[in-house]
Amino acid sequence: VLISKLGEFGLIERFRSSIKLDSTVIKGSGDDCAVIEFNRDRYLLFTCDMLVEDVDFLPGENPYLIGRKSLAVSISDIAACAGVPCYCAVSLGLPKNTTIGFADRLFRGMRDSARQFKINIVGGDLSRSKKLSIDVSMLGLVEKKFLVLRSTAKEGDTIFVTGTLGGSIRGKHLRFTPRVRQARFLVENFRVNSMIDISDGLAQDLSHILKASKKGALIYEGQIPLSRRAKGLKDALYSGEDFELLFTMPRKEADRLLRRKISIFRPIGEITAAQAGLRLVDKKGKERNIKPKGFCHF
Amino acid sequence: VLISKLGEFGLIERFRSSIKLDSTVIKGSGDDCAVIEFNRDRYLLFTCDMLVEDVDFLPGENPYLIGRKSLAVSISDIAACAGVPCYCAVSLGLPKNTTIGFADRLFRGMRDSARQFKINIVGGDLSRSKKLSIDVSMLGLVEKKFLVLRSTAKEGDTIFVTGTLGGSIRGKHLRFTPRVRQARFLVENFRVNSMIDISDGLAQDLSHILKASKKGALIYEGQIPLSRRAKGLKDALYSGEDFELLFTMPRKEADRLLRRKISIFRPIGEITAAQAGLRLVDKKGKERNIKPKGFCHF
Repeated sequence: VLISKLGEFGLIERFRSSIKLDSTVIKGSGDDCAVIEFNRDRYLLFTCDMLVEDVDFLPGENPYLIGRKSLAVSISDIAACAGVPCYCAVSLGLPKNTTIGFADRLFRGMRDSARQFKINIVGGDLSRSKKLSIDVSMLGLVEKKFLVLRSTAKEGDTIFVTGTLGGSIRGKHLRFTPRVRQARFLVENFRVNSMIDISDGLAQDLSHILKASKKGALIYEGQIPLSRRAKGLKDALYSGEDFELLFTMPRKEADRLLRRKISIFRPIGEITAAQAGLRLVDKKGKERNIKPKGFCHF
Repeated sequence: VLISKLGEFGLIERFRSSIKLDSTVIKGSGDDCAVIEFNRDRYLLFTCDMLVEDVDFLPGENPYLIGRKSLAVSISDIAACAGVPCYCAVSLGLPKNTTIGFADRLFRGMRDSARQFKINIVGGDLSRSKKLSIDVSMLGLVEKKFLVLRSTAKEGDTIFVTGTLGGSIRGKHLRFTPRVRQARFLVENFRVNSMIDISDGLAQDLSHILKASKKGALIYEGQIPLSRRAKGLKDALYSGEDFELLFTMPRKEADRLLRRKISIFRPIGEITAAQAGLRLVDKKGKERNIKPKGFCHF
């Protein structure tokens, strides 16, 4: 029986089951980052992401942008927990026929990404492999009072996204800037109840929040900010790799945020009771359930 | 121009150059682990290792043992810095045609390895990939007073190895137990000046210590403990994947260790001035230089 029968999330569930964690692990897998006790005031955030040729980028792609993206994906996970990225290690699987020029541009992309966010590249591993593959593991820090998880959305919360959604595959997925600054601005100035980064599409990632928080949601088609490159609502709901933030905050906090008129933060709906599931109000005011599907590896 | 022209270590050097590190990084890449400031008494150790099908294991191999090895390789790096492994994250690239049975056995190998060393598996990432690839990033802790690096061997130090060397490819590389207990025993009871794990062969890994410490070494063929599966001295010097410890300590400490008659620790030579390079005394008493070659990915 093939793993595709379980699907990506079923397979992850199977791996997680029967893993035992000690009390220094505040949150194991199942959020954007693992959360580990660090000191009195701060948690250590730990995440890793693997990019593979043909899946996360195409062979002809600009190696500088591949390098940049390989770090950006993990930085986005740290941002989703409201942390600051600090250290990373890079495991590289390179095909035998890689040129020095290609490797140099790949490295430059990684270093530029690291420099932009003041991240220390502290180590790595190099292997030969058939296809280019890059695994980045990232450590970040977050003040205990600022940590935001997926599992703590509250009924009545307003749901926000940053930026615009959809069509990322037509360019943005290689050029996005992880939303560290926006996440830090939010937690330093507002009470944020839950947060995730949108990597598998709005519908799926919102569903992760709903499942982890045991809540439902109502979102409004007319308020979902579409990217210029999106081919329509479906693209925004189901296509992956936006790497925007999706977060929820109490109504009062939301009003306070909205009064600041910062165009990057857009309200798209609200958290409801669990029974409702994930519902969409279309532009004609008609309400329907939407499926939590999105990009899936298996 | 292909990367094979630079070689594995040349390529790593190229990547490392122009990386800037802040003062919380005690040691970036270039040792078994990165060493990061953690708290008053302890450092955080951070390492990652990628295993790729056809390079680190063959397609027909027992998936349980592959899973076990994928963690063991990184645990061995933590041991080489005299630390205790604590947390790990696993990035998995799985081919589409992977069966649930295969995945289950792979996961069981990982979990058993983690349980044996009380390691928390706190996260991971799952991707589709052409060939099975596994990247494990591992965090460990070490008391500041116990940290041992490659770069601090002293002239006159006695050189030791644990266990036996050579022929690992004929089985042991999938079944070895990382030397955490031995490393901890050493630092808790003796002054150890330098340490590394032997992953690329004795000649190459000893050369890493010599280069980092700016020293030479004299080793005695008759004292190198050969594995039953080794095909001779060359196998012990140049074949990789032994995952034993190679360490040096002052003569007096060495004498103290030898009086304990613990058969797992074997003296094989001594650290000399840099000019001598790496020299071997053969069984007839003849001395010659040996090359620091070993397993190399490119």
